Amino acid sequence: MIKGFPAEPEESIIYQLNVINFIKHAIRNFARQEIISRKLDGTLFRYTYKESYERMQRLANALESIGVKVADRVGVIAWNTHQHYEIYYGLPGMGAVMVTLNLRLAPQELAYIVNHSETKYIIVDEDLIPIAENIANLCDKVKGYIIITDKDLKNVKTNLNPIYSYEDILSKALPEYKWLNLDENSAYAACYTTGTTGKPKGVYYSHRNLYLQTMMFAAYFSFSVKDVVLQLVPMFHVLGWSIPHASTYVGAKLIFSGKWNLNDVEELTKIMVQEKVSLTGGVPAVFMAMLEVIKKMVEKPDFRRTRLICGGSEPPIALMRGFWDETGGEIIHSYGSTEAMSNSTINSFKPWLKKELSEEELWELKKKQGIIVSGLDAKVVDENGNELPHDGKSSGEILFRGPWVTTSYYKTAHTKSSFTEDGFFKSGDAGCIDSEGYLKITDRIKDVIKSGGEWISSIDIENSLISHPGVLEAAIIGIPHPKWDERPLALVVLREGFQSMKKEEIHGHLAKKFAKWQLPEEILFVESIPRTSVGKLNKKLMRSKYQDFFTKS
Amino acid sequence: MIKGFPAEPEESIIYQLNVINFIKHAIRNFARQEIISRKLDGTLFRYTYKESYERMQRLANALESIGVKVADRVGVIAWNTHQHYEIYYGLPGMGAVMVTLNLRLAPQELAYIVNHSETKYIIVDEDLIPIAENIANLCDKVKGYIIITDKDLKNVKTNLNPIYSYEDILSKALPEYKWLNLDENSAYAACYTTGTTGKPKGVYYSHRNLYLQTMMFAAYFSFSVKDVVLQLVPMFHVLGWSIPHASTYVGAKLIFSGKWNLNDVEELTKIMVQEKVSLTGGVPAVFMAMLEVIKKMVEKPDFRRTRLICGGSEPPIALMRGFWDETGGEIIHSYGSTEAMSNSTINSFKPWLKKELSEEELWELKKKQGIIVSGLDAKVVDENGNELPHDGKSSGEILFRGPWVTTSYYKTAHTKSSFTEDGFFKSGDAGCIDSEGYLKITDRIKDVIKSGGEWISSIDIENSLISHPGVLEAAIIGIPHPKWDERPLALVVLREGFQSMKKEEIHGHLAKKFAKWQLPEEILFVESIPRTSVGKLNKKLMRSKYQDFFTKS
Repeated sequence: MIKGFPAEPEESIIYQLNVINFIKHAIRNFARQEIISRKLDGTLFRYTYKESYERMQRLANALESIGVKVADRVGVIAWNTHQHYEIYYGLPGMGAVMVTLNLRLAPQELAYIVNHSETKYIIVDEDLIPIAENIANLCDKVKGYIIITDKDLKNVKTNLNPIYSYEDILSKALPEYKWLNLDENSAYAACYTTGTTGKPKGVYYSHRNLYLQTMMFAAYFSFSVKDVVLQLVPMFHVLGWSIPHASTYVGAKLIFSGKWNLNDVEELTKIMVQEKVSLTGGVPAVFMAMLEVIKKMVEKPDFRRTRLICGGSEPPIALMRGFWDETGGEIIHSYGSTEAMSNSTINSFKPWLKKELSEEELWELKKKQGIIVSGLDAKVVDENGNELPHDGKSSGEILFRGPWVTTSYYKTAHTKSSFTEDGFFKSGDAGCIDSEGYLKITDRIKDVIKSGGEWISSIDIENSLISHPGVLEAAIIGIPHPKWDERPLALVVLREGFQSMKKEEIHGHLAKKFAKWQLPEEILFVESIPRTSVGKLNKKLMRSKYQDFFTKS
Repeated sequence: MIKGFPAEPEESIIYQLNVINFIKHAIRNFARQEIISRKLDGTLFRYTYKESYERMQRLANALESIGVKVADRVGVIAWNTHQHYEIYYGLPGMGAVMVTLNLRLAPQELAYIVNHSETKYIIVDEDLIPIAENIANLCDKVKGYIIITDKDLKNVKTNLNPIYSYEDILSKALPEYKWLNLDENSAYAACYTTGTTGKPKGVYYSHRNLYLQTMMFAAYFSFSVKDVVLQLVPMFHVLGWSIPHASTYVGAKLIFSGKWNLNDVEELTKIMVQEKVSLTGGVPAVFMAMLEVIKKMVEKPDFRRTRLICGGSEPPIALMRGFWDETGGEIIHSYGSTEAMSNSTINSFKPWLKKELSEEELWELKKKQGIIVSGLDAKVVDENGNELPHDGKSSGEILFRGPWVTTSYYKTAHTKSSFTEDGFFKSGDAGCIDSEGYLKITDRIKDVIKSGGEWISSIDIENSLISHPGVLEAAIIGIPHPKWDERPLALVVLREGFQSMKKEEIHGHLAKKFAKWQLPEEILFVESIPRTSVGKLNKKLMRSKYQDFFTKS
């Protein structure tokens, strides 16, 4: 780093970027804006930013009153609720670190995170107490549990100990809090990432990281006070993809989805229509379910002004087209990771491509991960770390660096292998960038299939398999092959009613789209496909099981 | 400042915010986007971001080749041209500081700035050589002048020495430059502010200041690659109100207005229509002239998607209404200063106010400076520095603090009186904030009129005076008064054809809008009103001239 001419004298105060400023700003200007929270019984709780802010301040005071100190780590196990939102500001605002706990992790993983982060207190939804109970014995350094409940604590059944009532401690606390002037490199939250191997790895977001990422995101999606935002993305996933913070940044109306699964999508869709939601985000499976609901609706929702941010995996064209045809709503593909935060890329069209490409080409383009957002450095590199050209073909690992990309894991040896010395995060994703800057992810690097020197994208083939009406689940793995180094093997779970389908049918389906050398060498029908605790395909396990499939014969 | 839990180990690399990243990003994704520059002969020069970027890199190399080093200061005297845009990145990108020189300043002011900043080289448009010549003898430390011209240097008449040709040194330089990893607190540019008293004061913007301000601005105005942006604001004014940088941030199409004055507004309006401009900015006088042009057009421009950012002073309702009625375009009032950068406030409507207020009330609201943007701390304080309530009445001085607000002037004693110890900039503007957060500026603090303990807004009365068809110019000043401490005195320049107008007519015009005690105690018709070198009302001079007007009699 080179020092230029100092803009101000060395002793000047550098104004620190602090996430609490988002809500302070919202209150200054948008105190009357509404916040809605979907309760367990499905009713909608409504209050305002002003009321929320008072409770955030009470929470900060309350946490201090029970002994939470600056730099302490406090875990959160919660649905998407207004209390969770209050915690987003009240907890890190008093200088503690919010440890976001994914309620879908296995107990040993959760316990590892709690212990590794030395979490002192855990805030937990009454409905999720069993998750906390499952790890309590493994986490003997936790000093207490704060239960989010409307009930009197006496009526809450749990063996957690000691326990506090979130509402109780808030009601006893003062409604005003003098927010700290925190060093911007202080941790705002810790988010642990889980893979198919090893222990979860801790990514600690500083206030600065999150502040800058939020500003970028707000700019890219034109968040404004006129927006009505439905928070579907779990708030423990990469901070809910930054949607709550970007909404607060501009004072948008917020709707928290509460506890929900795919069966609740019909109800959530109705809320979208009723409250005129203009922005939401989710994984393809959620939008798929929503599209099914919409297809059955007599009066179609008007989503022409609604941005549907889709992440997690590639949205199928049928999904995007379906939304467009039924509602006028645009699904926008975005890609991120725990380490580089959400929205490392965003797929939006450039005016000239809209003119130059055919409709079919535009839909194909929309599947890609998108252009790398301003602020990030990114490159695709080969095995030796050499940068590859942006030609839409040269595939390698994609690396990110930037103002909100972490440069290390908290206290683990993994840092060395996952980050370069000049601050790039090695994403573990394989892909290529085209001449217009659009990134396409083809595989996880460790799942890459190299057949005769050429890369085969397992993601493309899997997506094509799943688009067949008879296929419920599918995975493509690369297996050692005597002639071609590796060849792809397809594992397919058939849907009910398609059990008699032949391999040739699948093969023919794929052959319409892929070159012969890209087609799976073999297709196996299986009962189920192994997945990790967060539902990702466990290809490591599959490869191990089938490793000598092509060599033994 | 309190240190929380460190998000990453102390020795970690903090990714530095560097303005050069905006153009690097634009090139990565929007290399084909067009940039237009209006030449002296009125023709339009067109090239692309890609071509511009190559020239920025050549410029960085060229500056090094003539001896410019990291941290050196380099002055720029230029119109709004594509070369000026190249300088915006090429110059600070190689670590030097761009000293923006306002070509409308008096020679002694310009010379002071050049000497005070120890400017080493000056880049100057051929057309503006006389300005540089006027100060050359006063600035003996300047080592050379770089002339922006298409001509061979032999054919450029000047006594500046030594001189370089901008095009020559670019053509000889390499087209690739490895941008520096600059410390983000390094100065990007220096902008000197001039008042009615004393020497110009130097505000040095760091890369970090400008980076953060640009992101905020891009978010607030939803800049996107689909935008076509006309740069009317002089690029030496608070960095052209950040419009060039925000456009680059998203890869918008840019049009530079070249050399122009109010007589060129018709031509510029035609360019707006022809190129489908979706965003521009200017002072009310420019938009007034544009509205006159539009009123005469048979086919009205469609500005329904065009944001017209209006700063410098309060836009009259007639102006805003005129644009709305004639074109569907919205004039958006924004307020800034050299020290707090542009867009400290932006006047945009909240959904609920649109519902609650009448049309007339909304127009009145639109005149206000707007809500304070996210990221800034702001307060209105009384003479003792006590914060005043947001009640829309309590007036005092408005103070700003934030990630892009300077906390000192470069090497002057003024810093002590203009900044608080906790980092607030004392704007010198008097105003009040209402319960919805809208700031209204009523006066310069030093021009405030206190009559019988009540504040009278000279700005409101001046604007009302100017709205009278017979009034060409007007100023309201506070003059010592034996009974009321101070009373307002109006100085009015009448338009041709209205020379016989009576005081009573003016008085009656004001009496429709203001309370009796707010009305000027006396109205004087004068030949002209004294102004500063940048065209502001010179009230200090007026007060001095009329100081005993109410006491002598």
